This record gives sequence, C-alpha cells and structure tokens, in this order.
Amino acid sequence: MTTGSRFPSVETLAKGVLAGNRALLARAITLVESSRAPDRPLADELVRAVLPHTGSSYRIGWTGPPGVGKSSLIEALGKELVSGTGQKLAVLAIDPSSRRTGGSILGDKTRMTELGHHPQVYIRPSAAGNYLGGTARHTRETLLLCEAAGFDHVWVETVGVGQSEQEVHRLVDLFVVLAQPGAGDDLQGIKRGILELADLLVVTKADGPLLQSARQTQLQLLQALRLFPPQPSGWSVPVLSVSSEENTGLTVLLNKMEEFRSRGRETGFWETRRMEQQTELLFSLIQENWLNKLYSHPDYLELARSAREKLATQNHTPDQLAEEFFRLLRFDWDN
Amino acid sequence: MTTGSRFPSVETLAKGVLAGNRALLARAITLVESSRAPDRPLADELVRAVLPHTGSSYRIGWTGPPGVGKSSLIEALGKELVSGTGQKLAVLAIDPSSRRTGGSILGDKTRMTELGHHPQVYIRPSAAGNYLGGTARHTRETLLLCEAAGFDHVWVETVGVGQSEQEVHRLVDLFVVLAQPGAGDDLQGIKRGILELADLLVVTKADGPLLQSARQTQLQLLQALRLFPPQPSGWSVPVLSVSSEENTGLTVLLNKMEEFRSRGRETGFWETRRMEQQTELLFSLIQENWLNKLYSHPDYLELARSAREKLATQNHTPDQLAEEFFRLLRFDWDN
Repeated sequence: MTTGSRFPSVETLAKGVLAGNRALLARAITLVESSRAPDRPLADELVRAVLPHTGSSYRIGWTGPPGVGKSSLIEALGKELVSGTGQKLAVLAIDPSSRRTGGSILGDKTRMTELGHHPQVYIRPSAAGNYLGGTARHTRETLLLCEAAGFDHVWVETVGVGQSEQEVHRLVDLFVVLAQPGAGDDLQGIKRGILELADLLVVTKADGPLLQSARQTQLQLLQALRLFPPQPSGWSVPVLSVSSEENTGLTVLLNKMEEFRSRGRETGFWETRRMEQQTELLFSLIQENWLNKLYSHPDYLELARSAREKLATQNHTPDQLAEEFFRLLRFDWDN
Repeated sequence: MTTGSRFPSVETLAKGVLAGNRALLARAITLVESSRAPDRPLADELVRAVLPHTGSSYRIGWTGPPGVGKSSLIEALGKELVSGTGQKLAVLAIDPSSRRTGGSILGDKTRMTELGHHPQVYIRPSAAGNYLGGTARHTRETLLLCEAAGFDHVWVETVGVGQSEQEVHRLVDLFVVLAQPGAGDDLQGIKRGILELADLLVVTKADGPLLQSARQTQLQLLQALRLFPPQPSGWSVPVLSVSSEENTGLTVLLNKMEEFRSRGRETGFWETRRMEQQTELLFSLIQENWLNKLYSHPDYLELARSAREKLATQNHTPDQLAEEFFRLLRFDWDN
C-alpha cells in the first residue's frame, strides 16, 4: 500500500491520457484522487503535463434534489448525445457516500448501466476523499484529465449535498438544475440559492399522471426566475420539461445546450466565464487557506471558547474585544 | 481643531448621558463619531463606562427603497408611540450622504420636523465618517449611548445603500422592511436578500388611489415570504399596510411590534438573538481585519496583478498557484 510503485510513471500516464487510453486514464484519475502525501507531487506533475491540452470540452454540471431522476436523465440524454454523432462523453459524479461507507453510489451498478457500456462513454465516480475540500480539487483535476483524453463533453453530476453545487457551478460552462413535478409552492425541494446559479432548468418525469403537474412546475419556475436579475451574459434561462422514460424533450434540451454554447462563444461570454472561474477559484482558495491559519491559532480558539462570557459581563463591546484580540495576537508565521 | 479639550471629560460625559442630559448626549455621540485618533481611547472609555447601563431599549431597524416613505412613517408612528405614554424614543439615521457632500440628509430640516420637537424624542443622524466600516461602529456606539440615556425605543433608519441593511439587522431586535405599492412582479425595488432579514413587512402609502395597489403588494409579499424557511424563533412574519398620510394601520403596527417583543421574551429568543448578534459581530470583525492583513500584503497585490496572465499561460491550475503563493509568502507579523 505504501510503496511508490503503485502507479506507472508520470510520463507514461500523461502519454496514455493524451492518447485516450482508458486504462491509463483510470490510473491517472486514481493518482489525482489519492490522499497519500507522496502521490501529490506526481499528481501535480501529471496535471501540469496535460494542462496545455485541456479546455476544449463542453463542461456541464447537473444538480437537483435526491430522487429527481438525475441518473435516468443523464443515461437517456447521454445515449441521445453520442448516438450517431461520434461525440465522446465523460460523466463524473461527486460521490459523498464513499467518505461515509467506503463504497460508492455508482458502485452498485444499477445506475447508467447501458450508457456505461457505450464505447464513446466513460463514467467515473469521483470519490469524496479523506480530507475536507479534497473532493472539489479531485473533480477539477479529473475533469482536466478527461479533457486531455479527448472527451467532447464532460458532465459533472452533483448529489446535492453541502456546498458541492457552488463548487460545481464554478467548474462548468453550463449549470443545469433539475426539478421534479409537484404541487404546492415549495419549489419541490430545490435548495435556496441554487435557482440563481442555473443556466438551464429542467422539470423531469413529464409523463403519465405527472405530466400536468410537470407543466405547472414549469410555469412556477418561470415565475420564480423573474424575481432574479438577468444573467450578465444576457442569456435568459429556459425552463424545459423532459421524460427520461418516454424520451421526450431530450432533443430540445440538447439543442438548448448547444445554443447556450454557440451564443456564449459569439458574445465572448464563454471565455470570460472560464477566466473568471479560474481567478475566483484562485482567490477563494487563498482566502480559505488564510482564514484557516487564523481559525487554528491558539489565541483564536481561546477567544472562541470565552467570547460569550466576556460579552455577557458587559465589560467590552465586540468592537473593543476584536481590537484587543489583534493587539495581543502574535503570529509565528513559519509554524 | 486638534487640541484635546474639544470635549468635556469622559466622567462628565458619562454622568451626563446616564442622567439623560441631551446636550451631553449630543457631545458624547460626537465623540464616538470622531475620526481623530486621539479621540478613540476617550470614546472607548466612555462606551465602557456606560455599557453596564445599556440593553434595556427596544432596538428597531427600518429599511426600504428610496421614496418608500420611511421618514414619514417614522414621524407618524413615533408620534403615535410617545403620545400619552411617557415612552422615550431616539431615532438614528445612517447617513451616507455626509461622506459625499459633507452635509446630511437630515440637515435639511424638512424631515421629521414635528417629531423632532417632541420632548420625549431625540433624532440624530449618524454621520458616515471618513473611514470604511466606521459608520457601523459609530451607529452601534451611538445606540448604546442612547440606551444609557434612558430611551425606551431606539430606532435605526437605514437609507438602503450598500451593506448597511445587514449591519443594521445585526444591531436590532426587530427589523422592519418597508415596501411601496406597485404593480408588476419586481417587488417594488426591494433589494434581494433583504426580504429574508425582515421580521415585519410594511406596505406604505395605503391610501387614496394607491390603496388597491397596496393591498395587491401586501398579498404578493405574503406569497414571496412563503418561499423562505420559517424563522428559527417560530415567528411568522406579518405583512401590514399603513398610511402615514391618513394615520391608518399605525396602531396595528405598534401592536405587532409589541407582540414580537413579548413573544421573544417568552420564548427566550429575544436574549438568544442579542447574544448571537454580539458573537457574530465579534467574529466577523476579526475575520474582516484578518483578511485585510492578507489583502494589503505586497505578495497578494502582486498576485492580484498577475493572476490572469499566469492562469492564461496554462502552466498552473488555480490550486497549484494558491499552493505556490503560500509556499513563497513570508509575513512580517509586526508590520
């Protein structure tokens, strides 16, 4: 387990990935997902080697509440995408269950079975890893590896837990939010703040007895969208409905996805968004790391313990306590 | 201008404030609002001296878009509150215009004229000060001084610019959002994120030709509120309508304000919220200060200048650049 020879050389991996070799791509992804410290420099070297060959895929994020039918839609839509077109599709799923159980939600083989066997398709669950924040980095690097391997579409499926939507939104060109048909005005379990991120809204299960309900939900979502300011690109967010069961609405959805890309390229917003994603990510990583230095400082931990009591005695205002904190704080930078 | 004798001694000011002396209260507020460095220790001493005598007022924040009729409502409601009850009211207005023009929006004497002359009422614009973030601290300290001076109600009026609503929300027991009657579904100019902060929503100008429109807006706001999760206290946010012109709806509004307070005290949420406000404020002040240390570091400024170019050359991912930044960063703590 701890020998350094678990992986082929970085050169072999990079060549394999660039040649589209599935077995070596899988090994490369395992390397960037590894939480073993000695693997990190190798992973960095690998990512740097393929970096000039990345950027040409259509990166799409898929999110929605549990049970909305994400996997069914991705299965149906993926088949529609690749059939007869020669396009290659990679599907990454951020999988929080692997942290809890050591298993994988995709490991049960009941999801996306047919799609997974298609020669133009590669499906890969992205393990949550053992450290906080690791998932997002693994997913970012896996996406780059898939791009370097020549996939035309890279789809990232989020399971809708925690902050993963925001992270995926910052990773993709198009962010699709799925909703299920339902009466009432609670927007069918869509998390607050997610609707604002959507470039495309899709109501699933628009078939059989749910068809009418799906239409209502579609209208309701359209109304809710009017509460939001328009996207800076000028794109007005479409609300579609589909049935993965009856394969209806899939072509319209694929066309909208294509329209979003061609419009974005025309207006220049496509490149702008990618550059903004990169710089925002850089500065948020720096901010996060910087704050962690504070949060792990003994003086801060002591203040966190005693703050309520100090405030309750009414000897200091929060402003005065904050000032005093920084007056007394000493920071040994190299620790 | 630069002598130390502009102000009476801290002892004199503190005694005066606690005795409810208006002239000394005004001087005390001028001291905490001062941006002269030598005044700060005196202001701190003064605030600390009165701190044990604070906390007993009803702190209420008022916000709404320009033209909604905040001042008219505060004038009409203030008169209703103090008349015949002996209650004392202080009104603070955060005034961003003083930073731009050196003047004050309250200085034109056209607003709240009658209320300002009432013996139980004290109206004070809170100057925005000369440094960023100064306003909020001034307002917090002024509120404490007014409480120490024996005011039963302290109302803070925000002009709805920038982050001031969030700051005021963190300062008050009850946060009231005003909306004006209007057709369409743009919620009449209410800023996104503000609705979520409201403990009470009030539609103004519910009189004459606007009465019907006000009722519609009331309904619309009620529907919008259903999109939000319930308040942790269990309080369900009322939507009222008032006319400051015809003095209608004012008693209902005063009763709701009182109901919010008595319920909060029964459930313990009143004290919980105040304690949470204090601790949140403390930690956000510390976080802000800590981040400013980073943002003013020469290495950070250099990265901010060069980040886009470095990312565009595709030699590094944002993750790798962030790591490199911290590897190279040296911090001279005492500078």
